[in-house]
Amino acid sequence: MQGLKEKTTMPASTEGNGWSHVDTVQLNGSKEDLPETDSFVQQAMTLIMDEVVRKAGHASGKVCEWRSPEDLTKLLDLELGEAGEAPAQTLQHCRDAIHYSVKTNHPHFFNQLYVGLDHYAMVGSFVTDATQPSLYTYEMAPVHCLIEKVVLEKMMDMIGWVEGGDGIFNPGGSMSNMYAMNLARFQRFPEVKEQGLSACPRLVLFTSDQCHYSVAKAAAFLGIGTKNVYVVPADESGKMIPKELEKQIRTAISEGAVPFMVNATAGTTVLGSFDPIEELADVCEEHNLWLHVDACWGGAALLSNKHKHLLKGVHRAHSVAWNPHKMLMAGQQCSAFLVRDKTGLLQRCHSASASYLFQKDKFYDISRDTGDKSVQCGRKADAFRFWLMWKALGTRELERRVDHALEMARYLTEGIKKRDGFRLLMEPEYTNVCFWYIPPSMRKIPDSPEFWQKVEAVAPKIKERMMKTGSLMVGYQSHGINANFFRMIIISPMVSTKDMDFVLDEIHRLGADL
Amino acid sequence: MQGLKEKTTMPASTEGNGWSHVDTVQLNGSKEDLPETDSFVQQAMTLIMDEVVRKAGHASGKVCEWRSPEDLTKLLDLELGEAGEAPAQTLQHCRDAIHYSVKTNHPHFFNQLYVGLDHYAMVGSFVTDATQPSLYTYEMAPVHCLIEKVVLEKMMDMIGWVEGGDGIFNPGGSMSNMYAMNLARFQRFPEVKEQGLSACPRLVLFTSDQCHYSVAKAAAFLGIGTKNVYVVPADESGKMIPKELEKQIRTAISEGAVPFMVNATAGTTVLGSFDPIEELADVCEEHNLWLHVDACWGGAALLSNKHKHLLKGVHRAHSVAWNPHKMLMAGQQCSAFLVRDKTGLLQRCHSASASYLFQKDKFYDISRDTGDKSVQCGRKADAFRFWLMWKALGTRELERRVDHALEMARYLTEGIKKRDGFRLLMEPEYTNVCFWYIPPSMRKIPDSPEFWQKVEAVAPKIKERMMKTGSLMVGYQSHGINANFFRMIIISPMVSTKDMDFVLDEIHRLGADL
Repeated sequence: MQGLKEKTTMPASTEGNGWSHVDTVQLNGSKEDLPETDSFVQQAMTLIMDEVVRKAGHASGKVCEWRSPEDLTKLLDLELGEAGEAPAQTLQHCRDAIHYSVKTNHPHFFNQLYVGLDHYAMVGSFVTDATQPSLYTYEMAPVHCLIEKVVLEKMMDMIGWVEGGDGIFNPGGSMSNMYAMNLARFQRFPEVKEQGLSACPRLVLFTSDQCHYSVAKAAAFLGIGTKNVYVVPADESGKMIPKELEKQIRTAISEGAVPFMVNATAGTTVLGSFDPIEELADVCEEHNLWLHVDACWGGAALLSNKHKHLLKGVHRAHSVAWNPHKMLMAGQQCSAFLVRDKTGLLQRCHSASASYLFQKDKFYDISRDTGDKSVQCGRKADAFRFWLMWKALGTRELERRVDHALEMARYLTEGIKKRDGFRLLMEPEYTNVCFWYIPPSMRKIPDSPEFWQKVEAVAPKIKERMMKTGSLMVGYQSHGINANFFRMIIISPMVSTKDMDFVLDEIHRLGADL
Repeated sequence: MQGLKEKTTMPASTEGNGWSHVDTVQLNGSKEDLPETDSFVQQAMTLIMDEVVRKAGHASGKVCEWRSPEDLTKLLDLELGEAGEAPAQTLQHCRDAIHYSVKTNHPHFFNQLYVGLDHYAMVGSFVTDATQPSLYTYEMAPVHCLIEKVVLEKMMDMIGWVEGGDGIFNPGGSMSNMYAMNLARFQRFPEVKEQGLSACPRLVLFTSDQCHYSVAKAAAFLGIGTKNVYVVPADESGKMIPKELEKQIRTAISEGAVPFMVNATAGTTVLGSFDPIEELADVCEEHNLWLHVDACWGGAALLSNKHKHLLKGVHRAHSVAWNPHKMLMAGQQCSAFLVRDKTGLLQRCHSASASYLFQKDKFYDISRDTGDKSVQCGRKADAFRFWLMWKALGTRELERRVDHALEMARYLTEGIKKRDGFRLLMEPEYTNVCFWYIPPSMRKIPDSPEFWQKVEAVAPKIKERMMKTGSLMVGYQSHGINANFFRMIIISPMVSTKDMDFVLDEIHRLGADL
C-alpha cells in the first residue's frame, strides 16, 4: 500500500494553481508538525489526569470558581484570530476551562440530575471521541452497532419485556420523549408521517403537573401544541392521580379531541416521585392509549432489587425513556429510548431511506444498519461508555451504587428532621431530598403568608453565597404552592454520611444571619 | 471544609439497614480502589495515544478490519454480567473497540462527510468529557456559555450578518434543519406552539431533489408531513432551479396551501452542489418565505476567500445550519444552528421556563442562561473543541485546509479524466468527486441500458472488496437516473496527491477483473 501520511503546511498565500507545487510544499512541511501535536496531546492528557481525574473530585478543593460573566470574559482569552498560537497557549485554555468549570465530580456537587462521570465511562468517551464512529450503518460503526444492541437488550430485560423490543440511543431524555410522542401518534395515525397533522383530528396527550418540561417542549416541536397536553393533577406526594387522568380523558373525548398517549414519570425532576404505573397502564388499556414512561431519572432503580418496586408495572409501557447518564453516571449524553414493539415501528416511523447510506445492494445484512430508525443522521456511540462501565463494574456494583444513593438520601432526610431550622417538604421516595432552611431570625414567626414570603428569599440568597464561596452546589426552586426550597440530588458512590452532614452544616453556616 | 471523598465499596450482600454500618464499610474500603482506577485511566490514555493518535492515522495500516456481524459478535466479549472484571480486561475491550472500528482518521478514509478529528479538537472533547458541563445555565457552564457565544458570533460574522443574530449548538445537522422549520412556522403562525398544527392551514415548504434526507425526516417529525415538502427539480449540476421553485410556490397557493419556507442547500450530500442562494433569496422575498440554508457541509467554504463565492447571498438567509464537524474536523457532533433574528425568536419559540433551572430570582443576568432556546434539556459543550482548535490553528490555517481539500478534489478530477476506465459524473464544485469505474471487460460495450445495468453492479462489488481488504473506504450510490457510482469526499489536510493517485490505482486493482 502506498500513500505517505503528510500534513499540509503550504503557506496561506499559495494560490494553489498547480498541485505539483502544492504537493512539494506539503512534503517539505510535513515532518515538523506531528511531534509537536503528539506532545500537545500528551501534555493535555497529563493535565486532565492531574486537574480533573485526581484533583477536581477532592472535597478539599472548590466545587466552582464563580466569576460573573463580565469578569470571566476578561479572564478568558476568548477571541478567535487570524493566526494560530503556540501549543502552550492552547494548553492554558484547557487549564482555564477546567479551572472555571463547575467540578461536577466534586463530592459536594448536588445540583443536577447527573454528576461527573465514572472513570470507566470517561475512558469510554475518550475512546469514541478519538475514533469518531457514527452510527448510521454497520459498515461505519460495526463495534458500536453490536454494543448498542446488547445494551438496549439488557435494559429491556430489566424493564421486563421478556420478548424484547427495539430502541435507540439519542441525545437526551427530551429527545426520547419526542420519539415516544411521534411513535404513539404514528402507530395510531400512520398517515401523519406523509400528510402531517393537518389531516388528523386534534390529538391530545396526558401527563402530570409534576412531569419534566420536555413534554411540553416536545408537543410544541412536534406540532401537537402545548394546549393539547392535558395536565393531570398529582397527589401531595407528587404522583399522578389515575382517577383524575380518567376525568381528563373523558373531557378530551367530550370536546371531540382524540386522546392518544399518556406520559407517566418514574422519578420526577423536582420531587423524585414515581407515578403509579400499574394503575395508569389499566387506564391506558381501557382507552387504547400509548403508555410512555419517562424513567430518565428513575430508571436506575430497576437495577436494585430493593427499589425496583418503584417502577412496578413498567413492563406494561409501550415505550420507556431511561438515561444512564443520570443516576448511573455514564456521562452526558447517554440516553436510551426503548419501545416494546417488535414489528419495526421505530424504523417505519422515522425512515427516509437515503440512497447514499442505506443501499439495498450491500454485501451484508442491512438490518444491522440502525441509522434509519433515528431522526438524526450522524449519531454518536453513546452506548459504548455505559457498556464499558457496566463490563468493568458488573450489575451488582451498579445495584450497590443505586442502593447507596438511596441510603444517603434517607440519612440526609433523618438529619433534616433532627436539626433545628430545617423543614422537610415531603418524605423522599428516591434521592431528591427537598427541604427549607429557616434562619434563626425567622424561627419564631408563625406559619403565614408573611412567613413564607420571607422563606422565599432565603434559598436564593444562600445559593448565591454557596456559589461565591464555592463550597457546595445544591439547586433550589419554588414549586406549586411551595416557596423556594432546596432540592438535594444524591448520585455519586463517592459521597458519604460526612458529606450529608456537611450539606446541612454549610447551609446553616451560609444562612444563619439571614 | 470537611468531607472525605470516599469510594463506596460495601459488599453486595449488605442490606444497608443502618448508615453507620454502611459508612464504616465505605471508609474501610475506600483507599484501595482509587489508585487502581487512576492506573486504568493512565493505561487507557497511553492506549489511545498509541493506537489512535499515533497509529491509526498511518497509511501503512488498514482503514478497517472488516468482520461480519456474526464473526464480530464472536470476537467481542459483549455480554454484561453480574460481576465486574479486572481493569486489564476492560482495557482489552478498549483495544478491541479501537481495532475493529473504522479508522476515520486514516488518509484513505473518504466515505462520509466527516473524517476523524483534528488533534486539538480531540483534546477539546477530552476536556469536556472529563468535566461534564451541561449548557442549561450560566451557573452550570460558565466557560461554555461564553465560548458558545463567541463561536456563534464568529460564524455569523462569516455568514455576513453584520448586526449579528442568535444561535445554538445542537446534536447534528438534522436537528438544525428541524430548528429552522420550527422557527419558520412559529414566526409565521405563533399560535402553532400552543394550538398545534390542527389550528393552522396546510403549511408547505420547498427544497430541491438534491437536498439532505433530514428535510423529509424533519417535516415528518414536526407534524408537517413529508407530502408537504414540495420537491423542486435541480439542474444537471445539482442546483435548485429558481424558476421551478416559483412554479411550485404557485402550485401550492393554487391548492389553498400556505408556503412558509424554502430550504436551500449549500453543498449537497451526494454531488456537493450549491443552490443559487441569491436568486432563491429573491424568490423568498417576493413571496415572504423564510429562507433556510442547509450549509452543514458547504459552510466551511465561507472560511476561504477563494471559495466563499459558492455561498453568495447567504447573508440574506433567515437561518443557516453549519456543521464544523464535517469539513472543519471539529469532531462529532459540532453542529451550529444560526438565525438572523435578534428579537429572541429562538427562545420564544422553544421556551418552557422550567422553574427548577430558569429561576427569575437569580443573582446574575439570566440572559446568560441559554438552555431555554433549546429543545434539549441537558446539552453538551460542543462549541468548545471547535473553539480550541480555532485558537490553536487560527483562521488562516482553517482557510488553508479548505483550499487544500478543494485542490485535492481538482487533482483527483483531472486524474479521473486522464485515466482509462474512469468516467466523471460531473465537474465538482466542492470536494465531492463522483465517478464511475468501468472494468476493462466492459469498456467496449456502447452506452445502453444493458451497459448501465452492468455498471450498476461494479461499485457494490468493489466496495465489498475494499472493505474486506481494508485498503480504502469510499462510498457509492445510485442517484436519480445514474447507476451506482463512487462518491469521493476529501476533507483531511493530511491527504496528498499520492493518496488521490492511490484511490484510482486501488479501485482499478480491485475491479479490473470484473
